[in-house]
Amino acid sequence: MILDVTSAANPSVKRLKSLADKKARRLEGLFLAEGLRVCTEALAAGRVPVLLAVTAQAEAHPLGARLIEASLAARAQVMRVTPLLMSRITGKDNAGGCAAAYAIPDTSLSALDVAAAPLWLAGETIRDPGNIGTMLRTCDATGAGGLILLDSSADPFSVEAVRASMGAVFSRRIAQASGAQFFDWAGPRGEIVGAALEGRTVDYRAHRFKPPSFLLLGNEQAGLPADYAARCDALVRLPMQGSADSLNVAVCAGVLLYHALDQLAPLAGR
Amino acid sequence: MILDVTSAANPSVKRLKSLADKKARRLEGLFLAEGLRVCTEALAAGRVPVLLAVTAQAEAHPLGARLIEASLAARAQVMRVTPLLMSRITGKDNAGGCAAAYAIPDTSLSALDVAAAPLWLAGETIRDPGNIGTMLRTCDATGAGGLILLDSSADPFSVEAVRASMGAVFSRRIAQASGAQFFDWAGPRGEIVGAALEGRTVDYRAHRFKPPSFLLLGNEQAGLPADYAARCDALVRLPMQGSADSLNVAVCAGVLLYHALDQLAPLAGR
Repeated sequence: MILDVTSAANPSVKRLKSLADKKARRLEGLFLAEGLRVCTEALAAGRVPVLLAVTAQAEAHPLGARLIEASLAARAQVMRVTPLLMSRITGKDNAGGCAAAYAIPDTSLSALDVAAAPLWLAGETIRDPGNIGTMLRTCDATGAGGLILLDSSADPFSVEAVRASMGAVFSRRIAQASGAQFFDWAGPRGEIVGAALEGRTVDYRAHRFKPPSFLLLGNEQAGLPADYAARCDALVRLPMQGSADSLNVAVCAGVLLYHALDQLAPLAGR
Repeated sequence: MILDVTSAANPSVKRLKSLADKKARRLEGLFLAEGLRVCTEALAAGRVPVLLAVTAQAEAHPLGARLIEASLAARAQVMRVTPLLMSRITGKDNAGGCAAAYAIPDTSLSALDVAAAPLWLAGETIRDPGNIGTMLRTCDATGAGGLILLDSSADPFSVEAVRASMGAVFSRRIAQASGAQFFDWAGPRGEIVGAALEGRTVDYRAHRFKPPSFLLLGNEQAGLPADYAARCDALVRLPMQGSADSLNVAVCAGVLLYHALDQLAPLAGR
């Protein structure tokens, strides 16, 4: 049954809205995703919301109808809200047709199946949620298994990270660990390739990626810490022509992931 | 002479602060850049501020001293402000040591020297200022000449775009034009290579970039319009393994710029 909700004081509306806050996400074990396209990606990845709000317009859309059907079948709570109320929930003037709460998955390293992908991305203290979402999105595009976030990285389940991931938060695996845990876990399981600007690096074009590999990028400001670089099996650098000698971390990840993809699945007839 | 300023009501403080607003930027012909590192990049590119605010800490720094000296020599107005006032100017809690107003350069196509670089980036209605800044930063890293922004793109001189560019707003050229103006101007001057998901595209790894080339990317949501794709000399696509079939526009630019760089300046002994 779809419940008609018109008041911002409704507990379920307040619950959805509260998920913009990290403490509430941790307490509830839920995160917020928005938009029919993204929630349909979730469905394709076998993920059904716990709580779903739709506008009448989204309800009339074939994707919306399928989402509602799957949610009701899984005994999720489904609400019909006004566009104004949807804007309140998402904090966006131009809100989409749906907002939904999903269970935060297990993000421990032990839950990862390394064999599921030839390449995994890892980031040390990635601070910007937009960068995290963009890195996940690029993992999806290149077939990397997912993103392992180390140390004091930002929350990958924040509204901003989920938005930037464009649905990849559902299709890719996400793990969270300390640097020490990561090296102990990944070391025996594959080759750890760090991206760095200095030290014993090779030009990234000279490195041959072997599956499975873990591609490790450093923090936006500080780059890869020296003791982390020392524990990598190989270090690659991107050539820099300009004066600034720096690159956005998500762009750096994109260039390296596409390069690795080129080696792992070369263009036929090249 | 360095003026001590302690009041947020000071007209020069208000003038700097006003540059967060697009109308004020257009009216004054000025934009705001922050941080000693970025203002030092500007100096390296031969750009001196019209108006400079520094904290006492930045004044004592060798880079700050050099910046002040160059600014005074160019008859710029230089103010010493408190950290609190600096936070007011930049709107950041954790403001850096300096904020400066620079003249907005000529952004007409006729001001570009195409021969100055083998490759130029162009973007159609790029809406996100962070993407614009990141694209400029990648132009700097790869040696692309700069960014040509078409149609309803966001302002490359907004505080957010300038921040994301990490100084590349000074080292790279920026132009603004309509799509029609761009094709008429670029067509006779080089090869226009569009990035697209469908149509008569080739895998980007199969395309041979020739200098000078113009690499054209479409809007974040809509991609490259069909009539723009039709006017390109070649269309390239990035392979997509995932479900979402999309990539952040700045990541897409990064992968293609590094690929083109690889062809134009191949790794020795590869």
